[in-house]
Amino acid sequence: MAHDADGQLNLGRWELFIQAMIFLSLVDFALETLPNLTPMQRAWLESFELFSVGLFTVEYLVRVIGSRSRARYLFSFYGIVDLLAILPFYLGLVIDLRSLRSLRFLRLLRILKLTRYSRAMRRFHRALIISKEELLLFAATALILLYLAAVGIYYFEHEAQPEVFTSMFDGLWWAVATLTTVGYGDSYPITAGGRFFTFVVLVLGLGIVALPSGIIASALAKARQEEDSAAERKVSDTTDEA
Amino acid sequence: MAHDADGQLNLGRWELFIQAMIFLSLVDFALETLPNLTPMQRAWLESFELFSVGLFTVEYLVRVIGSRSRARYLFSFYGIVDLLAILPFYLGLVIDLRSLRSLRFLRLLRILKLTRYSRAMRRFHRALIISKEELLLFAATALILLYLAAVGIYYFEHEAQPEVFTSMFDGLWWAVATLTTVGYGDSYPITAGGRFFTFVVLVLGLGIVALPSGIIASALAKARQEEDSAAERKVSDTTDEA
Amino acid sequence: MAHDADGQLNLGRWELFIQAMIFLSLVDFALETLPNLTPMQRAWLESFELFSVGLFTVEYLVRVIGSRSRARYLFSFYGIVDLLAILPFYLGLVIDLRSLRSLRFLRLLRILKLTRYSRAMRRFHRALIISKEELLLFAATALILLYLAAVGIYYFEHEAQPEVFTSMFDGLWWAVATLTTVGYGDSYPITAGGRFFTFVVLVLGLGIVALPSGIIASALAKARQEEDSAAERKVSDTTDEA
Amino acid sequence: MAHDADGQLNLGRWELFIQAMIFLSLVDFALETLPNLTPMQRAWLESFELFSVGLFTVEYLVRVIGSRSRARYLFSFYGIVDLLAILPFYLGLVIDLRSLRSLRFLRLLRILKLTRYSRAMRRFHRALIISKEELLLFAATALILLYLAAVGIYYFEHEAQPEVFTSMFDGLWWAVATLTTVGYGDSYPITAGGRFFTFVVLVLGLGIVALPSGIIASALAKARQEEDSAAERKVSDTTDEA
Repeated sequence: MAHDADGQLNLGRWELFIQAMIFLSLVDFALETLPNLTPMQRAWLESFELFSVGLFTVEYLVRVIGSRSRARYLFSFYGIVDLLAILPFYLGLVIDLRSLRSLRFLRLLRILKLTRYSRAMRRFHRALIISKEELLLFAATALILLYLAAVGIYYFEHEAQPEVFTSMFDGLWWAVATLTTVGYGDSYPITAGGRFFTFVVLVLGLGIVALPSGIIASALAKARQEEDSAAERKVSDTTDEA
Repeated sequence: MAHDADGQLNLGRWELFIQAMIFLSLVDFALETLPNLTPMQRAWLESFELFSVGLFTVEYLVRVIGSRSRARYLFSFYGIVDLLAILPFYLGLVIDLRSLRSLRFLRLLRILKLTRYSRAMRRFHRALIISKEELLLFAATALILLYLAAVGIYYFEHEAQPEVFTSMFDGLWWAVATLTTVGYGDSYPITAGGRFFTFVVLVLGLGIVALPSGIIASALAKARQEEDSAAERKVSDTTDEA
Repeated sequence: MAHDADGQLNLGRWELFIQAMIFLSLVDFALETLPNLTPMQRAWLESFELFSVGLFTVEYLVRVIGSRSRARYLFSFYGIVDLLAILPFYLGLVIDLRSLRSLRFLRLLRILKLTRYSRAMRRFHRALIISKEELLLFAATALILLYLAAVGIYYFEHEAQPEVFTSMFDGLWWAVATLTTVGYGDSYPITAGGRFFTFVVLVLGLGIVALPSGIIASALAKARQEEDSAAERKVSDTTDEA
Repeated sequence: MAHDADGQLNLGRWELFIQAMIFLSLVDFALETLPNLTPMQRAWLESFELFSVGLFTVEYLVRVIGSRSRARYLFSFYGIVDLLAILPFYLGLVIDLRSLRSLRFLRLLRILKLTRYSRAMRRFHRALIISKEELLLFAATALILLYLAAVGIYYFEHEAQPEVFTSMFDGLWWAVATLTTVGYGDSYPITAGGRFFTFVVLVLGLGIVALPSGIIASALAKARQEEDSAAERKVSDTTDEA
């Protein structure tokens, strides 16, 4: 992988092609679930799948042979990802396909290959480290609030709507849909007490649920600042030498 | 409670165990509400409840006996919380269980014990103090807006949908679900006037409802800054002395 | 209105009482819309209304007589608000009540009296001035996006759901409910084109709708900074003199 | 276009009039889609459309004749926008109107003329350049998450609700409505696995979807800072000279 003078990622043609193939094989995967496909269309989609699996297999073998230390690549994170991206297909040829269908889910780990070449990802990673402590605190607070909301709504609504709020787990599902403000409308309070409780929970909860994204945003800004001051230091060092 | 050299919280094994027990007893509480439990499963859940209540009782007694000043612990905030976490169970043995069922709600105060050991909570507390004034202002503004929205939608929609917007309290419920953008879909305007009014209310309201989380986020950043500069001052004091 | 040494608002007992009365008369107003009131309850609510209107009338007269310049109070903003808070009641005695019912809406302007004594409101006002330019730009962009979204969804969905998306105004209502993420669920796209269009609109729209609250939040932080540095300057001036 | 001393945009009367006409012709466009118009109303709307198209044509011709370099205006971005704003109408006179109806969509490009005179737009443009890198990263992450969410919900819910989650594209639509927290309520999980998966997706997704607006907000603040420091430098340069 080559980088030009400005540090910009300079992807080779091959890598661009591989990324496009990953994207197309994911689209192919989605298209195969359409219910009204003609046999012709199904054949095209399946042959494209064959082609893409073949390509990823060749790439995997080239990487294994081409890497300086074979064992190191084979057991590296991306080595395993590359293997998992093609393994379910070959396993499907040996064992009965039907029972293995759910394993094809693993094919999606190919997506992780997309992140393989990304430099910007590192800055995001840095931001997560900076804000880890706060994020954990809010995750814990949010989980506690979710639980309390579930218990509360169950007590307020269970008698009025026994078929909607059957157990506390229905209350948890309601709490998830409400505190994230998704609000599907499949379950909502109808009693005066339940509605007032919802109001209280939302007042407490909206801040807690919305805060993490604000915390990450400010951490990202800090990470960028660190990069800038590091770059400045480099420049001033060069100037000092001259 | 011991802290290692880096100031990281070093929980003893006992405290970790207690926290796990609190978590499990809360899961137990949720599982007991499932409607289709077999008698066997119910027995398991109930015996686990007995065990956890017993454990919390032992812990409570140890704390009472072990504390330097018994009266101080008994009437401290966490002393009362620890008592309330076990009291409903023992009361349930004496009085009729059915009428006391709602009191079991108090058992959830056990969750507060989770916050007992948390150091990060203090920073959050500091952020709340910094932003108290703004938060109160926005809470007041939000309440006024909620009221005005409830009155407005009642006047616009009461005649068109008398069964949905029966009284102004239905309007309040609609205002809560709308301004928090939950939008369950159980009540919404159908007249042109009501829809335009909703648009105006949302334009005014989204900012007011979304602002508090932004205010807390910036207060949190400020609280962290205060910590950092306090730590720096300590370091420079040490350097000066040397 | 007296302020103590720290600049804290020191409300007199009378002002606190008036604020409580405003709050109670608003609750009274909401309670009167309940459909199943007994004649007894209705009588209580109405006599409380009589009492509060009487009180506000006395307060209004005292203010008129007590102010240094009567004309100035009468035509000041709050003079008019105070009048409008009681006028609809007296007009209702003269003209037929039924046709005037909607005018009672004005009674809510009493709420503005709540803001009369608020000092924190000024800081919020300052923040609005700082961020005025950006807010206007985003309001304009949001309105244009709303319009484009309404046109687009009308073209995509009108044929598939003629009764849901009857005219472009139904499209506008859908755009309001979608871009604010309320999502009542009374209208949503069902065609593949309409769904993809919704996706594109949401990607563009979420930022535009969410930005204003971020802009106001940072303006509030700036306004607080200005206050702090103004206070510091005062302190340093005093120190210099000494 | 003239600017006054403070750099405020000083729109001439003609330009204000043209902007009002653009606004009114857009309202006219919306009103024409109403289903129950009387022939009289329809005639009024159509004659207003004739008038506005005539006006825009005259403006276009004046601009073409009045510009120093005709070719440059004709092929400039706004020259093409001005042409596209009137072209569909004239084409409609020659070719059959019915088949061309969808082309009238282009008339909305008139809206771009609204942005023609906006100075504040440039600051927003600058903010987008500053935050481009992060926005692209989050757009990519959001797309990957959307895809994973669609696959996951399809696997969890396809069997339980085959008519709601027919193919993975229904899963995609659900993912769009859920991760943006719109939550129409036309599709939602009903299995325990699907609900838990939704919870996980929302925890990961809310941050990713909400972050871009925070990133743009901080970039806007930076862009304003740059403007301020540039203005200061100008002032200090002038002072130095004096």
